[in-house]
Amino acid sequence: MSKPIKLAILGLGTVGTGVINLINDNLDELKRRSGRDIIITEVGTRRQRDDIDASIIQNDDLMAVAASDNVDIVIEVIGGTTFAKDIIMHAIKHGKHVVTANKALLAEHGNEIFALAEANNVHVAYEAAVAGGIPIIKVMREALAANKVDWLAGIINGTGNFIMSEMRDTGRPFADVLKEAQDLGYAEADPTFDVEGIDAAHKLALLASIAFGIPLQFDKVYCEGITAITLQDVNYAEELGYRIKHVGFAVRRTNDKGEEGIELRVHPTLIPQDALLANVNGVKNAVLVNSHPLGQTLYYGDGAGAGATASAVMADVMDLVRVLGTDNSSQHGHHVPHLSFLPKQLSDTPILRAEQMITGYYLRVHAYDNPGVLADITRILSDAGINIDAILQKPAHKAGQVPIIILTLPVVESQMNLAIEKIEKLDAITDKVVRIRLDELA
Amino acid sequence: MSKPIKLAILGLGTVGTGVINLINDNLDELKRRSGRDIIITEVGTRRQRDDIDASIIQNDDLMAVAASDNVDIVIEVIGGTTFAKDIIMHAIKHGKHVVTANKALLAEHGNEIFALAEANNVHVAYEAAVAGGIPIIKVMREALAANKVDWLAGIINGTGNFIMSEMRDTGRPFADVLKEAQDLGYAEADPTFDVEGIDAAHKLALLASIAFGIPLQFDKVYCEGITAITLQDVNYAEELGYRIKHVGFAVRRTNDKGEEGIELRVHPTLIPQDALLANVNGVKNAVLVNSHPLGQTLYYGDGAGAGATASAVMADVMDLVRVLGTDNSSQHGHHVPHLSFLPKQLSDTPILRAEQMITGYYLRVHAYDNPGVLADITRILSDAGINIDAILQKPAHKAGQVPIIILTLPVVESQMNLAIEKIEKLDAITDKVVRIRLDELA
Repeated sequence: MSKPIKLAILGLGTVGTGVINLINDNLDELKRRSGRDIIITEVGTRRQRDDIDASIIQNDDLMAVAASDNVDIVIEVIGGTTFAKDIIMHAIKHGKHVVTANKALLAEHGNEIFALAEANNVHVAYEAAVAGGIPIIKVMREALAANKVDWLAGIINGTGNFIMSEMRDTGRPFADVLKEAQDLGYAEADPTFDVEGIDAAHKLALLASIAFGIPLQFDKVYCEGITAITLQDVNYAEELGYRIKHVGFAVRRTNDKGEEGIELRVHPTLIPQDALLANVNGVKNAVLVNSHPLGQTLYYGDGAGAGATASAVMADVMDLVRVLGTDNSSQHGHHVPHLSFLPKQLSDTPILRAEQMITGYYLRVHAYDNPGVLADITRILSDAGINIDAILQKPAHKAGQVPIIILTLPVVESQMNLAIEKIEKLDAITDKVVRIRLDELA
Repeated sequence: MSKPIKLAILGLGTVGTGVINLINDNLDELKRRSGRDIIITEVGTRRQRDDIDASIIQNDDLMAVAASDNVDIVIEVIGGTTFAKDIIMHAIKHGKHVVTANKALLAEHGNEIFALAEANNVHVAYEAAVAGGIPIIKVMREALAANKVDWLAGIINGTGNFIMSEMRDTGRPFADVLKEAQDLGYAEADPTFDVEGIDAAHKLALLASIAFGIPLQFDKVYCEGITAITLQDVNYAEELGYRIKHVGFAVRRTNDKGEEGIELRVHPTLIPQDALLANVNGVKNAVLVNSHPLGQTLYYGDGAGAGATASAVMADVMDLVRVLGTDNSSQHGHHVPHLSFLPKQLSDTPILRAEQMITGYYLRVHAYDNPGVLADITRILSDAGINIDAILQKPAHKAGQVPIIILTLPVVESQMNLAIEKIEKLDAITDKVVRIRLDELA
């Protein structure tokens, strides 16, 4: 058997501990598959732990661990975008391969980190950064490597999906379910990253780069959270055969001049009830990819948790074991490019502005029940070239006011903005128009 | 750019043509990802085709193509287990890497083929052999490489799934829907391989080997088709919250002495209606894998068709491009073992006999509506240590006879055999007991 592969783990929280447990539990499976011994030589932790095997060196100087001669692969599971960045750059400069679960760091600084890795001939692997244990990075970069991706749609934030699932299943409002998610440990005390869609936007930026071969552009992701979703809308959607989910979309568009543009957006979305994606419940994640010539494929599983994340981290380690030579130096051969496409082959296809995006819509309009109001609304939509797919007019729920629900076919957002502006100016309209995007996933 | 990778395609049916079309459509994406030019230099076809690019040599001597100096990778899409075997062995002996979609060949002769490939230091890649375009081979061998697989359950025969889906959706009987499947081109004129479960058993044998690290043992797969499934059972199952699907299971069992055994079985199965697997419809495929520490993950997509199969074939080619050096010789480094585990690490864990297998059951018993008959049946089950999960007694549908539906918790098959034998001996029982296995997928 060749020399053992020596790992360092930086950070001994839930995920770091999960990696140690995985290696303890499955060392035999790892060796039977890789033909190499895999050992943790050092861990970087600020607090000494007495439940860690004595053969593992515990060091509170994490920078020293990241550069240690006793380490081949550095596993970064600290999180955050400042110190984690410094330490990863330090490890790369010292010729270490890096495995990280840090989506925020890569979405915001990945271009710089991957460039440094290329320059130093090391790999930065990040399967655990998107959709937890679902191997979506490997699938997109390798299994779909012969396909042209048209679009992808993902439920990639477990907390948000838990909240949307519970609202529908139990009929409880957002604030109530958020509180439950916090009690269960699914949501942070400050839930902003999850419920405002920022975490999903980080992951979408990564998925879009490897789907289309574009640089990471987190700052251009249109991002809308779930805080404004009401039970009323959840129920109307169900009545019309749809379910509201928080979905990240990356879509390649070609205009009539043949110019390509890319939509990057995360937002609440009505999707058909019988779509598999609509039946991904609780904290589960799933990504649906539509590519040519493969068609639609879907990948489903746990998007978070110690076991799922450790599984992804160690899958990256197993890949690295195979590219490392018997002397543990990198083999300098072809490898899977960090962003799936070769660095020089990344394209500058523009990311479309929100107003240029094309989606269907769910509109909820509140109007005084005057004769002619529905005719006025439908005329405005029709004048704007917006096709109506379904209308649901409910009985008045407060004095003389009726909610009117309209589903539209896909339309450019700027057109919809103008139409809504006009609708809101009608005398009979009593409130702002509620709008939620809609996608048939077809 | 390094030397181009030279491909030969053996067989120009639907799949071979699909591979040519994929390369024509997506060559830019392939190059942007691999950094290599990929060209088809030769095709082996018995009939000259005039719609093939003139730069490609067409040769009706397939053996010559498989050994040509002008070829790095041989793509075998002829099918069958005789000539296809000869030609693959020939290619391997001439140092060619092989990509194949041939599940029957690998399930029946894979141990021999992979051994020859190891001896000749070439790769035999077979993503397209199982579940078409779903990258389940890559997922199991690489993405789950750090996990211990507990069990997997797959809808891995599109024809069978189409028939089961249509029977439920349209209320038409098996024979009727089979005819439709044949008219649509989903089923062969002789549908035996699909409807008797043999095709699914081939794929299950492959999946089980890479899940558990055991040699291929197609001959030990318990195999039951869908020909005996009636609409009556489809409807009773639905009424009880289940759906009947044709599912392949590979399950690791440990007995109370700590001895491991493996169940390999394909058969109609009641699964919960709200499971994602129950909502995989038409010709789609899906595989659900339960592994430690990852938990359940599911992979879904097209299990057949030119585009899906070509996608999988070319994903294998892209993997090979990365292991081939710039001079197109193999890099002799670590590679992903053919059966996921190193050849010397395959285990002789026994495959359990049918009588040793453990599953839940759906039983349909027809009885004269005598007082005491239900008591007799439940006593027999209880004496055999079989726990009843649900009972449904329907009104008499013919003179004095009632169908009684019983769902049981998991039980060893030999126990169930004995109990059914006793039930069938009761005076009040008018017909053979219908039994279908049941799995909660939990």
